Amino acid sequence: MSSNEHDFTTIIKTRRSVNKFIPGVEIQDKELEEIFNLTKFAPSAFNLQHTHYVVVKDSDLKEQVYEAAAKQYKIRTASAVILVLGKVDAHKDVGEMNEGLLNLGFLSKQEYDFLVSDTIGFYESRGDAFMREEAIRSGSLSAMQMMLVAKDRGWDTCPMIGFDPDALCRLLNVPDNYIPVMLIAIGKEDSSSFRPRGYRKPVGEFVSINRF
Amino acid sequence: MSSNEHDFTTIIKTRRSVNKFIPGVEIQDKELEEIFNLTKFAPSAFNLQHTHYVVVKDSDLKEQVYEAAAKQYKIRTASAVILVLGKVDAHKDVGEMNEGLLNLGFLSKQEYDFLVSDTIGFYESRGDAFMREEAIRSGSLSAMQMMLVAKDRGWDTCPMIGFDPDALCRLLNVPDNYIPVMLIAIGKEDSSSFRPRGYRKPVGEFVSINRF
Repeated sequence: MSSNEHDFTTIIKTRRSVNKFIPGVEIQDKELEEIFNLTKFAPSAFNLQHTHYVVVKDSDLKEQVYEAAAKQYKIRTASAVILVLGKVDAHKDVGEMNEGLLNLGFLSKQEYDFLVSDTIGFYESRGDAFMREEAIRSGSLSAMQMMLVAKDRGWDTCPMIGFDPDALCRLLNVPDNYIPVMLIAIGKEDSSSFRPRGYRKPVGEFVSINRF
Repeated sequence: MSSNEHDFTTIIKTRRSVNKFIPGVEIQDKELEEIFNLTKFAPSAFNLQHTHYVVVKDSDLKEQVYEAAAKQYKIRTASAVILVLGKVDAHKDVGEMNEGLLNLGFLSKQEYDFLVSDTIGFYESRGDAFMREEAIRSGSLSAMQMMLVAKDRGWDTCPMIGFDPDALCRLLNVPDNYIPVMLIAIGKEDSSSFRPRGYRKPVGEFVSINRF
């Protein structure tokens, strides 16, 4: 199905975390490129774009990810398993991320310089734990967008948090300034066995007006 | 526009963080209810649904949020400002969240008991920092979904991280076992002054295949 056939609400309602994928389905690099070309529009604080994705398609390597991720069977049948990373020192990129606006004249040199020093000060004054949390926050915003875009393109996903972060980072050559945010299995759902959708709290239980 | 007129890709491409809202636009509780009724389908680890939203509509209270959030002007013109919270001890809810599956017979009593003790053990063995990160991760996944759903319903948003978390928690009666994940201003964009979309890295710069 082309993406034009899907209205937004249908995608939201039909995306669900999939436990069983049809084995042997390949995801092409071109399809990944299309998915990430829309994923990139997710927001991030100061537009720092903390998120990096490592898409593991190679079957031997995927088997090693499976070993480092509590042997969750869905990784074996997935077309790929994706490690979502967050860059803990992304604030250092603030100059680079805003050069375009400077060059186009939307920021004056003075505004640009203020933005750079203000952003770096914002992160440095809040410290390492905040930088780590920002990497997780930004990576998770991006990951949600990615899973929805994937669904729109006919791909099912499952986010996972049960893995050995150090083992995965070693295995996939992750630099020290990135931390794992989550793993996402991607593939085509094997819907042969019915599984009910997980319970969701009614709105009144997770939304308050004005005060908690 | 009704949501049926929007295809998914258009929502992804047109959602952007808005800095200026049209003042004096009210968002009805019914509209919030519809937005959160789709937001709730976002995934969370073990389906723990860590996320809670406090929607500040009251103008006096919104002014106090503005004061605690670095006086970001968009809060003043927004129809509401929403504090996204994450529950740090959501793993204790695992029994409650899965009672339905037990009662419907999709989980045996043995499977249910294992799920409960396994989930609690998973969080307790990883400790407080992990619980905090989970609250941020889950809250951010939900928040991204919320901002996209809002856009589909004709509402613009802006996520914010610059605020005094302690002051906000006191102001909005947030219980100790919840932490702020982000603030989201929501309203109708004042698009009178053109602002270029922020730069986005090309896919090749934030996606690696097989290894970083």
